[in-house]
Amino acid sequence: MHVQISAPGANKVQLDISAVKYDLIKDDKGVWIGESAPQDEGFHYYQLWIDGAAVPDPGSLYYYGASRWGSGIEIPAKDQDFYALKNVPHGQVRELIYFSKSNNNNRRCFVYTPPGYDKDSQKHFPVLYLQHGGGEDETGWSRQGRANFIMDNLIAEGKAKPIIIVMDNGTWRMPDRASGAKPGECPAGPWPPKGWADGFTKTMLEDIIPMIDANYRTLADQKHRAMAGLSMGGMQTRVITVDNPDVFSYVGIFSGGSISIEDIKDARGFKENVKLIFVSYGSRELENRRTGFGGDPKENTEKLKDAGIKTHFYISPQTAHEWQSWRRSLHEFAPLLFKD
Amino acid sequence: MHVQISAPGANKVQLDISAVKYDLIKDDKGVWIGESAPQDEGFHYYQLWIDGAAVPDPGSLYYYGASRWGSGIEIPAKDQDFYALKNVPHGQVRELIYFSKSNNNNRRCFVYTPPGYDKDSQKHFPVLYLQHGGGEDETGWSRQGRANFIMDNLIAEGKAKPIIIVMDNGTWRMPDRASGAKPGECPAGPWPPKGWADGFTKTMLEDIIPMIDANYRTLADQKHRAMAGLSMGGMQTRVITVDNPDVFSYVGIFSGGSISIEDIKDARGFKENVKLIFVSYGSRELENRRTGFGGDPKENTEKLKDAGIKTHFYISPQTAHEWQSWRRSLHEFAPLLFKD
Repeated sequence: MHVQISAPGANKVQLDISAVKYDLIKDDKGVWIGESAPQDEGFHYYQLWIDGAAVPDPGSLYYYGASRWGSGIEIPAKDQDFYALKNVPHGQVRELIYFSKSNNNNRRCFVYTPPGYDKDSQKHFPVLYLQHGGGEDETGWSRQGRANFIMDNLIAEGKAKPIIIVMDNGTWRMPDRASGAKPGECPAGPWPPKGWADGFTKTMLEDIIPMIDANYRTLADQKHRAMAGLSMGGMQTRVITVDNPDVFSYVGIFSGGSISIEDIKDARGFKENVKLIFVSYGSRELENRRTGFGGDPKENTEKLKDAGIKTHFYISPQTAHEWQSWRRSLHEFAPLLFKD
Repeated sequence: MHVQISAPGANKVQLDISAVKYDLIKDDKGVWIGESAPQDEGFHYYQLWIDGAAVPDPGSLYYYGASRWGSGIEIPAKDQDFYALKNVPHGQVRELIYFSKSNNNNRRCFVYTPPGYDKDSQKHFPVLYLQHGGGEDETGWSRQGRANFIMDNLIAEGKAKPIIIVMDNGTWRMPDRASGAKPGECPAGPWPPKGWADGFTKTMLEDIIPMIDANYRTLADQKHRAMAGLSMGGMQTRVITVDNPDVFSYVGIFSGGSISIEDIKDARGFKENVKLIFVSYGSRELENRRTGFGGDPKENTEKLKDAGIKTHFYISPQTAHEWQSWRRSLHEFAPLLFKD
């Protein structure tokens, strides 16, 4: 990507993208100019360094990632049509404030309602609970992810059913007692530590789902409820769906591990009731074996298939642990939902 | 306000707020620290200067103002309770994409639906069209303005009726032919030049209002339609409502001029049909006579009153041309709406 910024008094200015810093060159008007190596297609976070200060690019749009609002860049992609804003019927992305009893505070989530939701007040819809990654928040899937445009386009083409998508905040402080670690220390033993998802699980089951079922025209049963997430959100999806096969019937794990036979051997009713386990990765993650915890995702998923569970394994070509992998994953996953 | 940023290699770092730059001091760890003079209560845009580069503060939230996303700070206010997030029933802020025929493109607006909107599918609501200022966009009123929390709280206290609020983008390139100026030149004659609001007027009347009436349960008549705006949005409100007294019945102009007797002398049906003209300013704007165009706003408004038109003139104490004036203006204006 190309970048430029006026900083006539600066000694050193760098572009920082995909974990590499590129020196910019100052022109005779004090404008620093430069570019990075070619980037993967799709969305990337980046920042500038000006004399040792890490700052956003004032010329960019801002996205929540790395636990703060920062710059993002969209690299044109050969397949960008599937997440483009087009002149098709559009759903709405609704910002919702609700009171969480289990946390005793106000929380925010975003809810995608499909095109036509407000037209027929008798119609009810299935729901996908869709989670962001670590350091991101409830804005990620509609901003970086363009989940609303992906769904609008799939629905317009007749490739996916109209569904409600709930995007809440899964960021959770590690429970000290569960992890056994002192504050600031990494806990010993397998990662993630047992209990790490308890807080969000409780919020999902006791607050989010009942609030959504009370306020939207949902089909409020296991058959019509899906959960998916990317990275940390995929790990949360695994824990929550394996522990609650009576709540969710479709499971999507994007760059966030997989489900093994061992995971579900004690999960009563899982095999009978869960309709699909979808697992995906960017191709570069698999090449570099950056596949997270819990064993080889492809092998795990094949074993589930051999055991009679419906699975779908997807590899996003030429992408790494990044939003283009997850946009494509949603685009592959959504058409498979609620077909049974 | 206090600010700090790590920039060990920088020569000069400044905080830039309310049109004043304050030098920061570097500590022995390379962190630049400093503070501004005390600021008015409420919301302020600000930025940092690092060796000549104007950048957002990486530790802040971002807001759209000055035609770009930049940092904002909230100075605690004695009256902040009226725009606080409280545990009351909340409306929703919905992000809407719609196709504009008059512009032949996709546009975005935000729509506040009041608490309970989805509960009773038979109930219809009045609508306030609420516009941002110059250099801002359709995100301003729900982010900087906290219009949704102001309304949630007023409705919870029984002080305002539940209404729909539509927040669209009024930014418009000056029409060259209308202004008579060459690109880049200021047009001669009175400001704003005739015709400057034609583009947004057409979009409001031909696209936005019909789209809202088609997609929401509105009371779709003049009696139940209001328009208000701040600064540039107030000037647009004046032009659009004076030209269309058959469309809007309540008018709010916040720090954006006023309506004079001369403005409406040819506007047939205005006096009979328009229910309220609300005009407001921050007290510091009046002290400094920064009241925009078209004569003294208080005198103008008193003359309207003398002519038998219902008016309300409000002064926000100890604030200037800034969001705290406009939050308070909405808080004063909303309870007066749709009482007849």
